[in-house]
Amino acid sequence: MTKQERDDLRLYYEQELFERVLPFWEQHSPDPDYRGHFNNLDRDGSVYDTTKHIWLQARQVWMFSKLYRLVEARQSWLSNAESGMNFLINHALRPDGRVYFSLARDGQPIYQQRKIFTECFYAMALSEYGRAIDHTAYIKEAALMVERIWDWAYDWSKVGRPALSGAKPAQMLAVPMMLLNLIDEVMVDEDCSSEIDDCFKRIRLHVHDHHTFEFVAPDGSRLDGPDGRLMNPGHVIEAGWFLQHIATKVQESSMIELSRNMIRNAQAFGWDEQYGGLYYFVDAGGFSPVQLEWSMKLWWPHSEALYAHLLNYAHTGDPNDLASFRKIDNYISDHFIDPKHGEWYGYCDRKGQVTHRFKGGPYKGCFHVPRALWLCWQLLQQWPISSD
Amino acid sequence: MTKQERDDLRLYYEQELFERVLPFWEQHSPDPDYRGHFNNLDRDGSVYDTTKHIWLQARQVWMFSKLYRLVEARQSWLSNAESGMNFLINHALRPDGRVYFSLARDGQPIYQQRKIFTECFYAMALSEYGRAIDHTAYIKEAALMVERIWDWAYDWSKVGRPALSGAKPAQMLAVPMMLLNLIDEVMVDEDCSSEIDDCFKRIRLHVHDHHTFEFVAPDGSRLDGPDGRLMNPGHVIEAGWFLQHIATKVQESSMIELSRNMIRNAQAFGWDEQYGGLYYFVDAGGFSPVQLEWSMKLWWPHSEALYAHLLNYAHTGDPNDLASFRKIDNYISDHFIDPKHGEWYGYCDRKGQVTHRFKGGPYKGCFHVPRALWLCWQLLQQWPISSD
Repeated sequence: MTKQERDDLRLYYEQELFERVLPFWEQHSPDPDYRGHFNNLDRDGSVYDTTKHIWLQARQVWMFSKLYRLVEARQSWLSNAESGMNFLINHALRPDGRVYFSLARDGQPIYQQRKIFTECFYAMALSEYGRAIDHTAYIKEAALMVERIWDWAYDWSKVGRPALSGAKPAQMLAVPMMLLNLIDEVMVDEDCSSEIDDCFKRIRLHVHDHHTFEFVAPDGSRLDGPDGRLMNPGHVIEAGWFLQHIATKVQESSMIELSRNMIRNAQAFGWDEQYGGLYYFVDAGGFSPVQLEWSMKLWWPHSEALYAHLLNYAHTGDPNDLASFRKIDNYISDHFIDPKHGEWYGYCDRKGQVTHRFKGGPYKGCFHVPRALWLCWQLLQQWPISSD
Repeated sequence: MTKQERDDLRLYYEQELFERVLPFWEQHSPDPDYRGHFNNLDRDGSVYDTTKHIWLQARQVWMFSKLYRLVEARQSWLSNAESGMNFLINHALRPDGRVYFSLARDGQPIYQQRKIFTECFYAMALSEYGRAIDHTAYIKEAALMVERIWDWAYDWSKVGRPALSGAKPAQMLAVPMMLLNLIDEVMVDEDCSSEIDDCFKRIRLHVHDHHTFEFVAPDGSRLDGPDGRLMNPGHVIEAGWFLQHIATKVQESSMIELSRNMIRNAQAFGWDEQYGGLYYFVDAGGFSPVQLEWSMKLWWPHSEALYAHLLNYAHTGDPNDLASFRKIDNYISDHFIDPKHGEWYGYCDRKGQVTHRFKGGPYKGCFHVPRALWLCWQLLQQWPISSD
C-alpha cells in the first residue's frame, strides 16, 4: 500500500466516522425526556421502537467516552456518554450486580437474559466513562464487576441457566474472547497475567488446524452435532484482533502468530466464493447450519474483518493480508454504506441485497462501525508500524 | 374446481403423503438404540444431529397415532407412535408436570424453555396415542395436563419467565390459538364451552380490520413498537382454521366468518407480490421487522395456507378462495417439494431459493406437512361439502 493510498484511506475513514457515522447517533439517539439513548433507529434516524437495549446503550457510552479521551475532548461527546451512563446506573444495574438486557424508555426493566454479556458491556461503559471523567470510583467498580463476571463466566447456572445432565460440557469461544477484551479495556491497572494465560489457553482449544470452532469440550476436543461443527467467521476474526492486541502487549509471539492465522483462516472458511461477503455461520461438515440467518451477510463481521486484516497487514506487509482487507473494504462500500443518511445498513441476504433498512436495532448500535473506523483510522495514522 | 380436478388433487396429495412424506420419517427417524425418533434429518434422511427436540417428537407421535386411528390401523404406524410416546414418558416429562424442550439421544435433558408449548405438544401426543390404543388413563392424564397448561397460559412467570415492570402487559395470538387446538384435540370428552368462549373472545382482540396482530394489550388495544406492529401470516392462517374447526362444531357462525376473513386477510398482507410466497413476519407500519428471517419463505405457513384456503373454498365456493389455494399449491410445488428424497424443504430465501437443505431440524419434523396433506386429502374425499 503506497503512502498516498494510506492517506486517502485515512481521510476516507475519518470522514465516514466523524461526518457520517457519529453524527447519525449524536443527532438521532438522545432521548430528551428520559435521558439515555434510543438504539432502534430507522434508515433516516427516526425512532421505530423506544425500547432501550442495554448492550447498545453501554457500548455507545464506551464509544463516546473513548473518543473523548483519546481523540478529542469534545464536550458534546462527553455529554452523550454521561447521559447514557447515568441512565444505565439509575436503571440497568440490579442490586445483585446483574444488569437487565432491555428497559422501557423510562427505565423500567423489560427483560433479563440468563447470560453474562450485558454485564460485560456495562463494565466496559463504566470503566471507560470513569477514565473519561477521571473518576476512580467508577474505574474500580468496573473492575469489581469484571471479577464477578469471571466467577460466572464458565458456569451459567450462576446467572440462572440450569445446567442439565444431557447438555455436554462445552466452552464457547465468545467467553474467553469477551474476557480478554475486558482485561484489555477494564483491568488496565491490575495484574492479570494469570487470567490472560488462562484466556490464551482456552482460546487455543478452539483452534483445530485451519478451523476455529465456536464450541469445544472443556479439554478442547470436538463436540458432536451442529454446535460442534459451528464456525462464526466474524467472531473468530473479532477474537483474533482482541487476542493480537493483548498478545502484543504481553509480547507473547506464539499467540500473535495464532491470532493472525485465526483471522486469515476465518476469512478463508467464512468467505462466500459465489456471492461475496462473510457468512454469518458456517457448518464445518458442509451441512446446512440450523440458524435461519446463516447465509446472511451482517455488517459486524465485515467491520471486524476490516480492522483485523489491516492490523495483520500493518505488521506483516503480507500482500495476502492486504488483498483480504481490500476485499472486505470493497464489500462494505458496495453493500453497507448509506451515503444519504449515514451509519451503515446491518443486514443483507446472501446475494448482498439489504434486507433490513434500519441502522439501529436490538443488536446493532453505535459500536462496531465507529469502533472499526476509529481503529483503522488510528492505525493508518501510526503507519509505518515497526514489524515484529 | 371440477370433480376431475378434485380427484387429481386428492390422488396427488395421497401419493405425496403416503409415498413420499410419511415413508421419509418411517425410514429415517426411528432410533434403534434408545427408541424415540431422530428429528434432525438431512435432505436424504441421514442424521446430522442426534438431539431429540420434544416439539417434534411429540408431534410425530400425534401424527402417527392420528393416522392409525382415522386412516388405517397399520401396525407400523402404531409402533412408530408407541416408540415415541414411551421415550417421551420415560424421559421428557418432569415430576412437576413441565416437559423438557430437548433431550440427548439417550434421554438426558438438555434444555428447558420458559414457555408452555412443549407441554402442549406433549399433551396432544399423549391424548391421541391414548385414543389410538384406547387407553383411558393416557386420555385423562392429557386432559389434566391441559388444565395445568391453562393455569400457566396467561402468566408465564409460573413457568419461570419473570414478569418485569417495564414489559407492557400483552397477549400473544399463539396462546389462545394453541388452547383452542388443545380443546379440539385433547378435551374432546369434556364440556369446554366457557373455555371456548374465552378463546373466541381473546382471538377477536387480535383482529383489527384487515390485520391480525401477534401481540395486543389485554383489552385488545394496539401496543407500541415492533411487537405491536408484528404480524405472522402463517400463524394467523393456522389460527384461522383451528378457529373454523371449533366454531363449526359449536355452530358459532360469527366466528366461522371471522376465521374465513382472518385467513383471507393474512393471505393478502402476507403475500410477497414481488417474489411470491408468504413472508414469515410483516410489520404493519411498513418498517423492517427486527427478526432477521422476516422475509424468508418457510414451509409451514404454506402448508397451513394450503389447507385453510381449501377449507374456505369447500364451504364458500368463492373463486377468490380457490385462487388463493392455487397460488399456494403452485408455490409449494415450485419450491418446497423434493421428489428425489421425499418430505419438503423447510426454508427458502425471499426469492424462493432453498437456504437449508435439511428436511428435519429443531423446529421442523413429521407434523405440518403430513397434517396439511392429510387434512386436504380428507376434505377432498368428503366433497361436496354442504354450504352453511
